[in-house]
Amino acid sequence: MHSRPQPAAAGPASVEAHRDKVRALLAGLAVRTDTVPLADALGRGLARDITAPLDLPPFANSQMDGYAVRSADLAEGGVELRVTDPVPAGAQPAALAAGTAAPIMTGAMIPPGADAVVPIEAAEPDVFPEPGSPATVRLPATAAGTYVRAAGSDIAAGTRALAAGTYLGPGQLGLLAALGLPEAPVHAAPTVLLVTTGDEVVAPGTPLEAGKIYDANSTLLDSGLRQAGLAVTRAGITADDPDALERLLRAHAPAVDLIITTGGVSKGAYEVVRQALEGHGVEFGSVAMQPGGPQGLGTFDGVPVLCFPGNPVSCLVSFEMFLRPVLTALLGSPAPRTAVRARLAAPLTSPAAKHQVRRGTLTPDGTVQLEGGAGSHLVHALALSNALVHVPAGTAELAAGDEVEVWVL
Amino acid sequence: MHSRPQPAAAGPASVEAHRDKVRALLAGLAVRTDTVPLADALGRGLARDITAPLDLPPFANSQMDGYAVRSADLAEGGVELRVTDPVPAGAQPAALAAGTAAPIMTGAMIPPGADAVVPIEAAEPDVFPEPGSPATVRLPATAAGTYVRAAGSDIAAGTRALAAGTYLGPGQLGLLAALGLPEAPVHAAPTVLLVTTGDEVVAPGTPLEAGKIYDANSTLLDSGLRQAGLAVTRAGITADDPDALERLLRAHAPAVDLIITTGGVSKGAYEVVRQALEGHGVEFGSVAMQPGGPQGLGTFDGVPVLCFPGNPVSCLVSFEMFLRPVLTALLGSPAPRTAVRARLAAPLTSPAAKHQVRRGTLTPDGTVQLEGGAGSHLVHALALSNALVHVPAGTAELAAGDEVEVWVL
Repeated sequence: MHSRPQPAAAGPASVEAHRDKVRALLAGLAVRTDTVPLADALGRGLARDITAPLDLPPFANSQMDGYAVRSADLAEGGVELRVTDPVPAGAQPAALAAGTAAPIMTGAMIPPGADAVVPIEAAEPDVFPEPGSPATVRLPATAAGTYVRAAGSDIAAGTRALAAGTYLGPGQLGLLAALGLPEAPVHAAPTVLLVTTGDEVVAPGTPLEAGKIYDANSTLLDSGLRQAGLAVTRAGITADDPDALERLLRAHAPAVDLIITTGGVSKGAYEVVRQALEGHGVEFGSVAMQPGGPQGLGTFDGVPVLCFPGNPVSCLVSFEMFLRPVLTALLGSPAPRTAVRARLAAPLTSPAAKHQVRRGTLTPDGTVQLEGGAGSHLVHALALSNALVHVPAGTAELAAGDEVEVWVL
Repeated sequence: MHSRPQPAAAGPASVEAHRDKVRALLAGLAVRTDTVPLADALGRGLARDITAPLDLPPFANSQMDGYAVRSADLAEGGVELRVTDPVPAGAQPAALAAGTAAPIMTGAMIPPGADAVVPIEAAEPDVFPEPGSPATVRLPATAAGTYVRAAGSDIAAGTRALAAGTYLGPGQLGLLAALGLPEAPVHAAPTVLLVTTGDEVVAPGTPLEAGKIYDANSTLLDSGLRQAGLAVTRAGITADDPDALERLLRAHAPAVDLIITTGGVSKGAYEVVRQALEGHGVEFGSVAMQPGGPQGLGTFDGVPVLCFPGNPVSCLVSFEMFLRPVLTALLGSPAPRTAVRARLAAPLTSPAAKHQVRRGTLTPDGTVQLEGGAGSHLVHALALSNALVHVPAGTAELAAGDEVEVWVL
């Protein structure tokens, strides 16, 4: 659908409409599926459903250090039982004879015949006898099932353990290990070509002439993309020369899954990305979002291209609003941003026609403090933030204490 | 203070008291400081304060595509001005003569003499003339400063840009790049020896005999530690043999900054970690926390040791409650967990004497749904969660709708 540029729409697209376009563009992303050891699966998305091959726990086991008993042997006021051989974790115990109690450790298998555990703290005496020496113990009445973790009570064999598209973090990988699975089928990391444009940007560490600024976008987006699990090729800074940009893209396109450019997309007179790509498979338009309004999207030599605006905060917001959630939905990685509700620490205003994305700091008391103003150049304010604050289209002002949706960065 | 074991305290330590002990133990962690390229600094903690070497923005620049003007030239009803040479981003413009307007692009330097920008949309005509051809433009009255980003308005040269101990994510690295700094001084990653113990655990991918369970802890903690930016050495599973464990620790200790063991710390009869380390520089005790009550802490051959309990959820909670926040405070990495407030979707009960840590799913409507019960073996429920839910000591029950503190995983 993006092989030919579309005519510019009458007005700006909504955030949702543009995200849908990004999703359609990336739906065909040709990303390999690999089966890898669990240690290499961290941060990747699961490529298919995983069914539990066994129950968890695999067998009924004790939740406490104590005595395994037949609950029918016990009664109000306590009953004296003969102590049998202890059951350590990892052992397969003999059946528990009526009238006896077996010392059992947390996690150890409940002996056949036993149906409850009395914690050692409730026993008289409340210490285990020396193994091998004859002993009795007085135990209180205890209901069947007490301190027993039933087989399959966490998950039953044959049921779905994890769904395709699940992000594999420590908890998910721990589950796969608990299920005995040494490997996981995952989507490989897409490779991204990142091209920063602009005559005015120079690399950090070099002298800064008047009128120039340092290139923050390369570092910001490169870090964000790598943190999101993507493999990044940085093509460096190009001059504002459309032919040079086109040559650069052509040289790299065969080796990458996705191209991201920054800058050169708005309606100014010197918009190198627009000049190079408009009419060549990429459409440029406006999204009703602040910052990050100007956006381009399409393909170049068959490779999906996203063109973000040039200000650092616009770049980050474009990544977080469009690319990141679409990758999460398609590939299960990166992890989805967690959305929470928080109360504004101070009032704000927002252009009613746009979805405004502010930067802020969430505090444990449930409030969010905005960092800096709405300006897309405020990279110091961004560096002080741990969250994105959403002011949806249709809202022109909010008061201190009003609840907003916040994404945790 | 940990070279000799302390006698067991009268009762369980509070979570805060135990965290203080972990902090004291790790305060002397001998971790290198390196100055590394920004690309290698992602995920590390900043080793010292960074002072801004220049203003951001470095010079007054335009927030819009439009006309740079002397605001005093304009008046109610609009004034016709002569259009001069355009100012592209990256150029150092000539001074703006009185009675003229210079086409200016977003981010371009405000010419000397100019003090405001009129957006192109407010100009008549609302398109720029061909450069070089004589032209005039009619512009409305505009206040001084309009659409001008003042030099230093994001951060002023000479002020602190980032504090020592700041976690370096995309936003922070983007700021350093914007300041022209190609490198950052960071704390190197500590190296951790991770030792999983237990006669009952076997490695995933091998057959499971009756009474045995698969080792989830190695994968869970290894992933969690690596995700937190640490370098991990996995020492594999040891049998419940205290001498073998001691030999294993002795062999690895010289090469690591920290030792973490799992399992073998409670009051049962077969507690290998306790048997190997109690009386050799490690103290064992109980923390008023559920799960994760039994904890050990001390040094082995001069290397700090933390002994976590053996259930997977207890391991993860121990890591999140003690080690992770202490590393964040000491080294600036990993990133601090974001704490938010959320409303319980359902009621819960908790042992009043303990700080209970439940697992749950935060939803965008501001509620948190508990996943599974309180049991520390519920690794499937953990895998469905994206948050830890705190029920502080002193609270025995909470109702649906009650607000709780939640840490975003």
